[in-house]
Amino acid sequence: MPPGGDWYTEEWAGQGSAISLKLARKLHDEQSPYQRIEIFETATFGRLMTLDGLVMVTDRDNFVYHEMMSHPALYTHDRPRRLLIIGGGDCGTLREVLKHDEVEHVDQVELDERVTRVSEQFFPELCAANTDARAHLHFQDGIRWVKEVAPASYDVIIVDSTDPVGPAAGLFGPAFYADCHRALKPEGLIVGQSESPLFHVDLIQAMHTHLRAADFLDVATLSFPQCTYPSGWWSATLARKDATLAGFREEDCRDRPFATRYYNDGIHRAAFAAPEFLFKALL
Amino acid sequence: MPPGGDWYTEEWAGQGSAISLKLARKLHDEQSPYQRIEIFETATFGRLMTLDGLVMVTDRDNFVYHEMMSHPALYTHDRPRRLLIIGGGDCGTLREVLKHDEVEHVDQVELDERVTRVSEQFFPELCAANTDARAHLHFQDGIRWVKEVAPASYDVIIVDSTDPVGPAAGLFGPAFYADCHRALKPEGLIVGQSESPLFHVDLIQAMHTHLRAADFLDVATLSFPQCTYPSGWWSATLARKDATLAGFREEDCRDRPFATRYYNDGIHRAAFAAPEFLFKALL
Repeated sequence: MPPGGDWYTEEWAGQGSAISLKLARKLHDEQSPYQRIEIFETATFGRLMTLDGLVMVTDRDNFVYHEMMSHPALYTHDRPRRLLIIGGGDCGTLREVLKHDEVEHVDQVELDERVTRVSEQFFPELCAANTDARAHLHFQDGIRWVKEVAPASYDVIIVDSTDPVGPAAGLFGPAFYADCHRALKPEGLIVGQSESPLFHVDLIQAMHTHLRAADFLDVATLSFPQCTYPSGWWSATLARKDATLAGFREEDCRDRPFATRYYNDGIHRAAFAAPEFLFKALL
Repeated sequence: MPPGGDWYTEEWAGQGSAISLKLARKLHDEQSPYQRIEIFETATFGRLMTLDGLVMVTDRDNFVYHEMMSHPALYTHDRPRRLLIIGGGDCGTLREVLKHDEVEHVDQVELDERVTRVSEQFFPELCAANTDARAHLHFQDGIRWVKEVAPASYDVIIVDSTDPVGPAAGLFGPAFYADCHRALKPEGLIVGQSESPLFHVDLIQAMHTHLRAADFLDVATLSFPQCTYPSGWWSATLARKDATLAGFREEDCRDRPFATRYYNDGIHRAAFAAPEFLFKALL
């Protein structure tokens, strides 16, 4: 029997399972042109943002996701200067990448400006870098942005998207990856969130296939715990143009001039270890 | 609002969060002398066993836990011949350790015989090794067993227990660890489940303190995803007598003569990587 009282529950689509967070009160509720945005104060996870009823971010556990979407890619690249974030409306990924002094310019292309404005209000710490002169916020369709941007514009592209349904579905497809390949400089990297290793192996397999078809030389998936996402276990898939993903700037990572809570050099190496079932699925 | 219809829900104690699994039907319900044992057929996780309302095992995700409670410890030890499992009533850990040809004798000491008998009925694949001539099932108090067993009886002790409340609380305390230290042979290892890195850092810290106080030379925590346990992220803490935990029989691990679904040599190394917050908590 589900818990009584005032709880937020997300049923994990098609997985016969659900997570619930105990609520203190609702802080915000709006229908943007794209989706319903709700903010809650929870009992033990701090603030919670949901989009169309799905958990996007909580104060308590977002650090793992945002660090793992940012630092492994940036420390793999020799000198990440120009970055593109697709999605990322809560701005937590933007904050992480701007901790890297090498980064000179970040375009963040989020479809729904309201997600960012609401985040600025309710998750000010995630949005602390929004006023950084290197951050350029654009509110438009990321798929179109990548199609139209000049070739070799970026060192790293981060696809910090919602699930591969609705407007985000195109962010997991071959045409989008081909455009990303074109938009990346030589030895450029793309990293995209790639759902749960327990629930969505098919999606991870498809991403590998599509990324290789788009001429990326190397593709690899890393994983990390993420309590409030489906199955509590999440992944990101990286691909690199003209170079492998093996190795990273270990010394820079160990000497990083900023604090992390999940990521470090040991975690960097560890995150890429594939569980046996995933290793076999990706052969 | 929690999901409607027929769901099993476990509220994660003190954490303002809960997981729910959609049920097909209840298969079994009994009150043993120690606890309430329920078996359900779920919609997507296969069979589920709960003890006093807490998830112990599901068909779908138990492989991660059972492999990680077994193989890292056994491949760290040079030649694990005599083993003790405390708890482990579902017999999934017993099955994993008996995949190692070096193992000659396993004592499994579970307080509640009914857990094992019910598992034999509803989780026959987890109990497939119960009739192995090397397996010796004892139904009694594990704390007392360790106190009374001859010194230097075991190469590896596995504490596959429930949460550190009620009868299992003593399995996390200094007196028990001192008895385990005495019961282990030189270079012997203990591994115990140590709850969630996200929710229970205090417990992991206390285990490290108690294990060192019991004269174990080296202590380390590994972690792994475990969808149906609190926070979806779980850990095991290892300690070794008279030797370090660094290194393992990598070649034997790669050439292992049995199948695994989660564990492999890359996962062995990766699992010991401490997230930054845990690394700092254990300094």
